Amino acid sequence: MSDPVLIIGSYLSPYVRKALVLLEMKGVDYRIDSVVPFYGNAEFERLSPLRQVPVLVDGELVLNDSSVICQYLEDRYPQPALYPTDITQRARARWIEEFADSRMGQVVIWQLFDQLVIGRGVWGREPDAAVLEKTYQQDLPAVLDYLEAQLPASGWLFGELSIADISVACFMRNAQFARYQLDAQRWPKLAAMLEVAFALPAFEKLHPFERAIARTPILQQREVLIAAGAPVSEVSHLREQPVRGPMSRS
Amino acid sequence: MSDPVLIIGSYLSPYVRKALVLLEMKGVDYRIDSVVPFYGNAEFERLSPLRQVPVLVDGELVLNDSSVICQYLEDRYPQPALYPTDITQRARARWIEEFADSRMGQVVIWQLFDQLVIGRGVWGREPDAAVLEKTYQQDLPAVLDYLEAQLPASGWLFGELSIADISVACFMRNAQFARYQLDAQRWPKLAAMLEVAFALPAFEKLHPFERAIARTPILQQREVLIAAGAPVSEVSHLREQPVRGPMSRS
Repeated sequence: MSDPVLIIGSYLSPYVRKALVLLEMKGVDYRIDSVVPFYGNAEFERLSPLRQVPVLVDGELVLNDSSVICQYLEDRYPQPALYPTDITQRARARWIEEFADSRMGQVVIWQLFDQLVIGRGVWGREPDAAVLEKTYQQDLPAVLDYLEAQLPASGWLFGELSIADISVACFMRNAQFARYQLDAQRWPKLAAMLEVAFALPAFEKLHPFERAIARTPILQQREVLIAAGAPVSEVSHLREQPVRGPMSRS
Repeated sequence: MSDPVLIIGSYLSPYVRKALVLLEMKGVDYRIDSVVPFYGNAEFERLSPLRQVPVLVDGELVLNDSSVICQYLEDRYPQPALYPTDITQRARARWIEEFADSRMGQVVIWQLFDQLVIGRGVWGREPDAAVLEKTYQQDLPAVLDYLEAQLPASGWLFGELSIADISVACFMRNAQFARYQLDAQRWPKLAAMLEVAFALPAFEKLHPFERAIARTPILQQREVLIAAGAPVSEVSHLREQPVRGPMSRS
């Protein structure tokens, strides 16, 4: 029997969450080493040259970048299919994933979640009111308008559930942690899609572990996660002191 | 007969070049609308919500992000295959592409090519000596060390030519335009791979068009390219005045 897949990265990273949702939905046995990039040790740096999460270790294979990891999981564990079969739809789904990774990464993670949760909790930094104002008034509505325009009258972005819906939901989970209330009057299709996505067993299973660490200092998260029943790996890639730097996109 | 594929983006963008190399190698009929992001008009903004190049238009499909576009081209026009067949190798090739897009994008494009070519030529800005020093002494050698370590004793990264080699070569072409001389003593495997890559008909065919516009003001590039015999599209997405902003990754 082969070892379980290892994911290095925090439950609170939307990039990590994408990989975890795919692993859950595909029924792949895995363990998680809950590390944030700035708390990664030297071995973490070796495995992740750009100091990003998630890192996937599957046997001899060490892989970086959440999009590359998710596509690998689809190729290696094809059932259930989470990328559209139609070539055009598949391409558009990958684009929505990229839009989430880059634009929602900027707006939801850096301008909202990092400001309100990480900045306060980890670095003791107060949020920048001007950044928040621009995020709430302009940047986040523009993102949500774009997504709303992509969605069909009802259901998932491309007929069946795909990496596109999963990606969007993964980022919007972080918006929830930053206490953002999506206006279902203004973005009804998106609100409906997200409600169904968050009710999927994969998202429901991960949520308690996310909540368990949301206000827990990094170095205590491991034991909190074990107590909560998370599939924590034996190996740990944490260091004692944070390296100042970004919680990078991946 | 269907219309040719349209690529919006400059011959000098490594992200655009990736798509063009794939189109050339796969023998797909295409036209190019040579636009840089900060000279894109309102229609360009509509087609490229993050104001990035390349944009691919293939019939009804409008697609952004070079990695998504390249994977689409592979799916739609599978011959010759430019992604490894083996699932693990394919995943690693996609990671190298991502490493090029993100890390080489930062170091080769922003810290080198943008400083020495775009900054001077478009904005009349002198390069930042400290940035160049750090690039030459630290950041670029680290990138090249990483790539050298990935390469086998000889040949392409993963046996056959793949998106990984193409991606790396696309960025190193920009390093050439910034007059960077790769030290073949220090990085012999990479130097040998690049020599073979640049001798491929696809890279050779694009090179004169790249050279033709390298020192030509944006608004004159179209006629210069037509005179040089480039497959220029009838439609143009240029605006008269640049919008200040990044030549974004894509």
